[in-house]
Amino acid sequence: MINYILKNENAVYHECGFSCDNELFLKLGSEAYFITDPRYTTEAKEQVQGAEVIEAKRDLSSEAKKLLRSSKIQKLYYDPSDFSVAEFNKLKQSLKLTFKSAPNFSQKKRIIKSEAEIELIKTAVTLGSKAFDDFAAYLKKKGFNQSEQYINFEAMRAMQQHGKYDLSFHPITAVNANAAKPHAYASELPLITGDLLLVDAGLKYERFCSDRTRTAEFGEALNFSKTQTFSDKTKQKVYDTVLKAQEASIKAIKPGVRANEIDRVGREIIDKAGFGSYFIHSTGHGVGLDIHELPVISQKSSTLIEENMIFTVEPGIYLPNEFGVRIEDMVQVTQMGAEIL
Amino acid sequence: MINYILKNENAVYHECGFSCDNELFLKLGSEAYFITDPRYTTEAKEQVQGAEVIEAKRDLSSEAKKLLRSSKIQKLYYDPSDFSVAEFNKLKQSLKLTFKSAPNFSQKKRIIKSEAEIELIKTAVTLGSKAFDDFAAYLKKKGFNQSEQYINFEAMRAMQQHGKYDLSFHPITAVNANAAKPHAYASELPLITGDLLLVDAGLKYERFCSDRTRTAEFGEALNFSKTQTFSDKTKQKVYDTVLKAQEASIKAIKPGVRANEIDRVGREIIDKAGFGSYFIHSTGHGVGLDIHELPVISQKSSTLIEENMIFTVEPGIYLPNEFGVRIEDMVQVTQMGAEIL
Repeated sequence: MINYILKNENAVYHECGFSCDNELFLKLGSEAYFITDPRYTTEAKEQVQGAEVIEAKRDLSSEAKKLLRSSKIQKLYYDPSDFSVAEFNKLKQSLKLTFKSAPNFSQKKRIIKSEAEIELIKTAVTLGSKAFDDFAAYLKKKGFNQSEQYINFEAMRAMQQHGKYDLSFHPITAVNANAAKPHAYASELPLITGDLLLVDAGLKYERFCSDRTRTAEFGEALNFSKTQTFSDKTKQKVYDTVLKAQEASIKAIKPGVRANEIDRVGREIIDKAGFGSYFIHSTGHGVGLDIHELPVISQKSSTLIEENMIFTVEPGIYLPNEFGVRIEDMVQVTQMGAEIL
Repeated sequence: MINYILKNENAVYHECGFSCDNELFLKLGSEAYFITDPRYTTEAKEQVQGAEVIEAKRDLSSEAKKLLRSSKIQKLYYDPSDFSVAEFNKLKQSLKLTFKSAPNFSQKKRIIKSEAEIELIKTAVTLGSKAFDDFAAYLKKKGFNQSEQYINFEAMRAMQQHGKYDLSFHPITAVNANAAKPHAYASELPLITGDLLLVDAGLKYERFCSDRTRTAEFGEALNFSKTQTFSDKTKQKVYDTVLKAQEASIKAIKPGVRANEIDRVGREIIDKAGFGSYFIHSTGHGVGLDIHELPVISQKSSTLIEENMIFTVEPGIYLPNEFGVRIEDMVQVTQMGAEIL
C-alpha cells in the first residue's frame, strides 16, 4: 500500500469529498487523516469521508509530522508541484523517512472519470452551454457599444448565474485582434456590429468544471452555435478550417489511440489550409476538478486514450493583429469513439 | 551586489514595471533579465524597464540556466515560497552555483512604500470606498430578499465597476451567523431587514490593492460608515467594542513602536469587554501589490513600525452561530502617527 501526502485542494477533495483552503491530507497504510485549522474543523467533521479530521492549532505540517513520526512509515509519496520549497523543507525537516517524488500523483488517479463524476461534469457542461446562450441573448439586447471590459463582466454574470456558480476560470471575451492573443486582456474598446468575438468560458458544478469556446460575428443574428457566418471571406475560411479540424480530431478519438494522433489529425487540416504556423497551442486538455488536468492532447503526448477520459478539443488559428478563431468542446471517450458533451 | 531570481508576478512587477503569467526575472550583478514565452514578448518589450527581455521558446528555466552558466555568479538568492519543489529542482539541476534561501525577499524590499506607490494605493482605497457606497446604494434599492450569493455577485460588480477594475480578492458578504466565520461561503438565504451584514472587499488600481471591512444592519438606513446602529443590544455592544479596539490600535501606531504593541492595545479592549476568546485572528497585514504582505500586525510580530508602511487594522469579534463584527481600514504610517486612508 502506498503512503502519501497531499496539499492541493482538488487532490484532497478527490480523496475525501471535502477541502477548504488550508489542509493537508495524509494516507498512511489503511489510515487517512485530514489536517486543518480551527476555522474549518466543524465543516470538515461534517463532510470529510473516510479520514480522521485533525485540528491543528497553528501549524498543519507540525501535526503531519507528529502523525508521521508515530507511524511506522518509511516512504512517503508527494507531488513536487504541490509544495513550495519552503513548505517542503519545513515538512521534511527532522523527519527520517524518505520522500518520493510523484509528479501528477492525483491527476493520474483522476484521469479516468467515474460514472458519478461524468454525471457532474455533464451537468456543468449543460449549465455552461445555457450560460453561453444567456450571454448571447444579453449581447444581442444590450451588448452594442459596450466595452470589452463591460461585456467581460457580463460573461462572468452569465457563467455564474449571478453568483450561483463559481467560474472554472476567468472568462475570455476577446474582440477582433485581441482574439488573436491566446491570453488577451479585455480592452475598453466598444463592441460594434461586424466585430469578431471569441468567448472562452466555463463554470463549476459541485466543483467540476465546464470549458467551452465559441467564435462568432457580433450583430443581431449573434448565437454561439458552431455554425457561423462571417461577412468577411478570410474570417469565414479560417472559421471553416478550424471547425473542420475540430470535427476531424473528435472523429479520431477512440480507446486505444494515442493523444498525439488526435492532435495530428486536426493540425494536418490546418496545415494544408496554409495556417499551420498560426495554430500555436496544443489541441486539448483533460477537465475535471481542475480546469487543466490529464490527459494532455498535444503533438508530444503519447498518452493512450481510454474510455471515460474527458478532455477538450480546441484547435485555433490566430492571425496576429487581425483576429483569431478557436472552437472548443469537451468530449467523453466512449467504447467506440467520443461523445461531445 | 546581490544576485537573485524571482518568479512571483508582483515581485517581478516591482522590479521592472511589467509582469504576465509566465516569467522569470534574473538579476545578475548589474544586468537584469526578464524571461517569458512568445505569447508575451511583444508586450514585455514595450513595457519592461531596466531589464533585457529574453524570449524562451518553450522552457523559461532552460533560458535562465543558460544565462546563469554564462555569468560568473556563484551565489543566487531565491524566495523558497516562490518556487514549487518541481520548479526548483528543474532550475538547480546541473547548475554549480549555490542557491541561498531568502524568505519574503521581495516583500521585505517593498515594506516601505514610495511616494508614487502611496499615491496609487490611495487611489485604490478611494475607489474602493466609493464602491462600498455604490454597493450600499444598490442594497437599499434592490437588496431586499436577495440571496447572499446574489448580493455577493453585486459586491463584485460594485468593486469592479462592471469590469473596469480587478478585485483585490473575492469579496466576503456574510450575513448573521455566517459573519462569525472568518472565511464564510455565501449561502442562498435571502437578506432581510434587521440582518447583520459584514462586507470585506477591495479592488486593484494599477495593480495596487485596497482592502476594507464594514459591518452594518441591513435595512433602509444602510450605509457603510463606521458609525452604526444595531437594533439588538448585544450586537451594538460587540460593534462598539470592536470600533473602540480599532481606534485604539490606530492611535498606537507611530514610527518606532513594535507591531505587537498595536495588536496588544486593541486586543486588551476586547479582552476587558469579555470577548477576548472571540478575537481569533491577528490585527492586520501590509497591503500593496499583494493583498497580504509585510508587515504582519500580530501578537507575535516584533516588526519595528516605520514611516510609509501601509497596513490594515481590522480587529473582530466572532460569536459562533450568532454573528461576527469586523471593522477594517488601511492606514499609512506618518512621521507622528497614522493616517487612515
